[in-house]
Amino acid sequence: MSAATFPLNAWYAAAWDHEVKRALLPRTIANRQLVLYRTTTGEPVALENACWHRLLPLSLGRLVGDEVECGYHGLKFDGQGRCTHMPSQETVNPSACVPAYPVVERHRFVWVWPGDPALADPALVPDLHWNHDPAWAGDGKLIEVACDYRLVVDNLMDLTHETFVHGTSIGNREVAEAPFVTTHGDRTATVTRWMSGIEAPPFWASQIRQAHGYTGPVDRWQIIRFEAPCTVAIDVGVARAGTGAIPSEGHASDRSQGVNGFVLNTITPSTDKTCLYFWAFCRNYLLGEQKITTELREGVTRVFGEDEVILEAQQRAIDAHPGYRFSNLNIDAGSMWARRLIDRQIAAEQRPGAPVIPIRAA
Amino acid sequence: MSAATFPLNAWYAAAWDHEVKRALLPRTIANRQLVLYRTTTGEPVALENACWHRLLPLSLGRLVGDEVECGYHGLKFDGQGRCTHMPSQETVNPSACVPAYPVVERHRFVWVWPGDPALADPALVPDLHWNHDPAWAGDGKLIEVACDYRLVVDNLMDLTHETFVHGTSIGNREVAEAPFVTTHGDRTATVTRWMSGIEAPPFWASQIRQAHGYTGPVDRWQIIRFEAPCTVAIDVGVARAGTGAIPSEGHASDRSQGVNGFVLNTITPSTDKTCLYFWAFCRNYLLGEQKITTELREGVTRVFGEDEVILEAQQRAIDAHPGYRFSNLNIDAGSMWARRLIDRQIAAEQRPGAPVIPIRAA
Amino acid sequence: MSAATFPLNAWYAAAWDHEVKRALLPRTIANRQLVLYRTTTGEPVALENACWHRLLPLSLGRLVGDEVECGYHGLKFDGQGRCTHMPSQETVNPSACVPAYPVVERHRFVWVWPGDPALADPALVPDLHWNHDPAWAGDGKLIEVACDYRLVVDNLMDLTHETFVHGTSIGNREVAEAPFVTTHGDRTATVTRWMSGIEAPPFWASQIRQAHGYTGPVDRWQIIRFEAPCTVAIDVGVARAGTGAIPSEGHASDRSQGVNGFVLNTITPSTDKTCLYFWAFCRNYLLGEQKITTELREGVTRVFGEDEVILEAQQRAIDAHPGYRFSNLNIDAGSMWARRLIDRQIAAEQRPGAPVIPIRAA
Repeated sequence: MSAATFPLNAWYAAAWDHEVKRALLPRTIANRQLVLYRTTTGEPVALENACWHRLLPLSLGRLVGDEVECGYHGLKFDGQGRCTHMPSQETVNPSACVPAYPVVERHRFVWVWPGDPALADPALVPDLHWNHDPAWAGDGKLIEVACDYRLVVDNLMDLTHETFVHGTSIGNREVAEAPFVTTHGDRTATVTRWMSGIEAPPFWASQIRQAHGYTGPVDRWQIIRFEAPCTVAIDVGVARAGTGAIPSEGHASDRSQGVNGFVLNTITPSTDKTCLYFWAFCRNYLLGEQKITTELREGVTRVFGEDEVILEAQQRAIDAHPGYRFSNLNIDAGSMWARRLIDRQIAAEQRPGAPVIPIRAA
Repeated sequence: MSAATFPLNAWYAAAWDHEVKRALLPRTIANRQLVLYRTTTGEPVALENACWHRLLPLSLGRLVGDEVECGYHGLKFDGQGRCTHMPSQETVNPSACVPAYPVVERHRFVWVWPGDPALADPALVPDLHWNHDPAWAGDGKLIEVACDYRLVVDNLMDLTHETFVHGTSIGNREVAEAPFVTTHGDRTATVTRWMSGIEAPPFWASQIRQAHGYTGPVDRWQIIRFEAPCTVAIDVGVARAGTGAIPSEGHASDRSQGVNGFVLNTITPSTDKTCLYFWAFCRNYLLGEQKITTELREGVTRVFGEDEVILEAQQRAIDAHPGYRFSNLNIDAGSMWARRLIDRQIAAEQRPGAPVIPIRAA
Repeated sequence: MSAATFPLNAWYAAAWDHEVKRALLPRTIANRQLVLYRTTTGEPVALENACWHRLLPLSLGRLVGDEVECGYHGLKFDGQGRCTHMPSQETVNPSACVPAYPVVERHRFVWVWPGDPALADPALVPDLHWNHDPAWAGDGKLIEVACDYRLVVDNLMDLTHETFVHGTSIGNREVAEAPFVTTHGDRTATVTRWMSGIEAPPFWASQIRQAHGYTGPVDRWQIIRFEAPCTVAIDVGVARAGTGAIPSEGHASDRSQGVNGFVLNTITPSTDKTCLYFWAFCRNYLLGEQKITTELREGVTRVFGEDEVILEAQQRAIDAHPGYRFSNLNIDAGSMWARRLIDRQIAAEQRPGAPVIPIRAA
């Protein structure tokens, strides 16, 4: 067995809220095959997507009330995974069940906990509140990327790559050359980069012009906050240069002459080499303009498409160089902290004496 | 090496009779790669499909008289697999040969015996005589299914699944709820289910209306006969309710007011996870009507297409859950017997002291 | 680890000269992933196609002057593989580099040496001089074949197969039946076959008619020269029968009444089961007629397409018969010598005490 690439005791986004309906949605999360649906009262349910009897994916069956009926022999399972009906027999084998996973719906995502259900504390859901905060407007997507989710985390923790990968939209030389500061806590790591009095890159030039009619030099910020194991919220924006957006001693940041966005990312490991990348872009300006929401969603889609090419090529290169260890640069300080925090979570679960995670699926 | 999934000392259908012609037909049977053809006098031949010299598939060569000429360097092999010609040399290496397999043509199929040729007794060919009996009319097909052949046997040994998989054609609630009886012999297992005074499902309603102009309630039967390792002949039909089709003490079954079919199935393991599923549907009514033959063949094709989706999904689920053991229900009595008889055949071949099967191919 | 299928201390054709440009060309040679380009002065360069930092293929980056800039974070590498720039830092880690491979351009191919650079003597480049000799005219192609390169060598070392694989173009019975002589040196093996006073096969009949207006019987020759590990130059042609083309005691060969071609082949192992097959056909007649050059190139393309089908089928058959050892015929004398010379080269590299080949890639 190869080394674990992700902790199990964590909330992972399994779907956007609108994806989970009165229908059976199959999805692979953390190497577990799940089927998701909503009950008649709207509660999300996540069950192992394999019938107790002969393993047929339950997602090939039917939703009957709050229960799933297997599409092969008609066994029924309730939202707790208990079998409630077997064909041609009066009594139901009491051991007949499929694993049910803790589920919580928050910040417009449906989260599941593949690890020990006793530890599934909803307070541990990562903070992506901008995604449903009326002071912010935005939209997002789900992309399936054929790489280890940690490569996406690496990518987000160092935005130097914008210069080389996204030169036509958000990248410029200043990002690659500006100094940055890295800090960290027990479950978080933060990379902060301020760029003072620079020319805005095409994306931000367009935003501040639309919001404030401003076209001159800007102060720019990128504050990347990682929350282990796989969530990255990035506070980004530009303001009219010299109006106080960059905090200084004795002065808090004044962003009133600027435009602010949050790039919300949570990258769920699907298998060890594929991930479900949920992202959204939320802004605090021109909230009612759906045209801008659509433009931003499609613009970010193009930018992330550029990353996808890089990330999948990187995964193939890693597979072609077994045993290779990454070399690191100064710019990797943030991703190295993210990796360290992930590794600690994995190690904690595998410590002798740690509770065995009671999951059937391999 | 993983555990054997099928016995080698068995007749396996390799092709429909009409598929074996004056041409080279490659086919994988029981993990052996074969090439099949007919001699000038019409006898079927099965050779290992790999030239003795450099392994090129002989099926890429030419049929010359009763011999195969390799398409690379022109070596020739006769119907016993002996090399009769080598290029640029006068004498033929006497050890040059390819394995030839015992072949027999019966019940409209060409059967091969991958095991010990000394044990290849034609009397052991499974009974599918309805397929060439003038009292019966019908037709069939070959489907390649990406699953262990035993999943197809399981499927056929319990027709409860008709209710859930084939609800629009042959399934109805009565099948899932009707009691059944399981019996078995040394090489056979039989599941018998009688349904008395029920509404005919759409398929049978149409048959009895065409044959007898009858549209009322029916007695229905399903007598599933498994012959190890992989043949299942199912006696099915309906008759006007209460006319004696269901046997009772002192009275043999009287099916004169009914319609009777035989679903003939023989499922040859091609590899451990793929199979060649040969089936036919034969009936004892309206024998001369080719329209009905065609309708039945296409109708059964649709029904078996529904099974194919289930069976391949089940195989993928098994692959995704290594080490998982099936849970069983009452309805699985027939398939459990079939599995037991298959396992006995495999075990007998692997017993210390059992004759080693003299086959080159791995 | 499986046994080596090729030596590393050898020059392998990596590209046609015209393929290597002011652009980044990815190519897999001897299981190494390379990126090829030309410097501003036209020198070919071959680097490992994986950035030192995070393994991204350098071929996804940009050529900037004589250096490659990685497409992810902008590291730059010069033609010796040394890193000359890292983003956001003043100093460059002196250990940062990617392997550079010895390269030489000769006979219209760009050759690389995957083994010990200290041994990369340009004098060892195989002799394919006809490909750029003004006394010869011709053209060729690169084909990617999904087989071990040695199967292509086998194919070329015995032209008996022309009779069976290429019966409509260059094959005829005489090739399969004519005697031949095999000789060998330390790095070469030669198979010579003379056919006296035969009917020309369609291909050669057309050539001698165009060059000499001759349509009668011919003397034909095939002199196959193998140079280890993977180059085969074949001297082929026909001449008016009885005019001295076939050498005899005291008389050198007089080919003045004939047409002569060289089939040039060098078959680079890409992986253990795929190869890059570079070939050209050069002739010494009607040099200025581009129409003939094009016809010959397309004609040979068709002929080699027939081989490709055979070779890939043979590789699949080998994979399906692990552990199988080829049986040999008299006609295999040439390919057996070629295999022996290849095996000696591989063994010499793996002898205890042989220099360890300093290559990172696996």
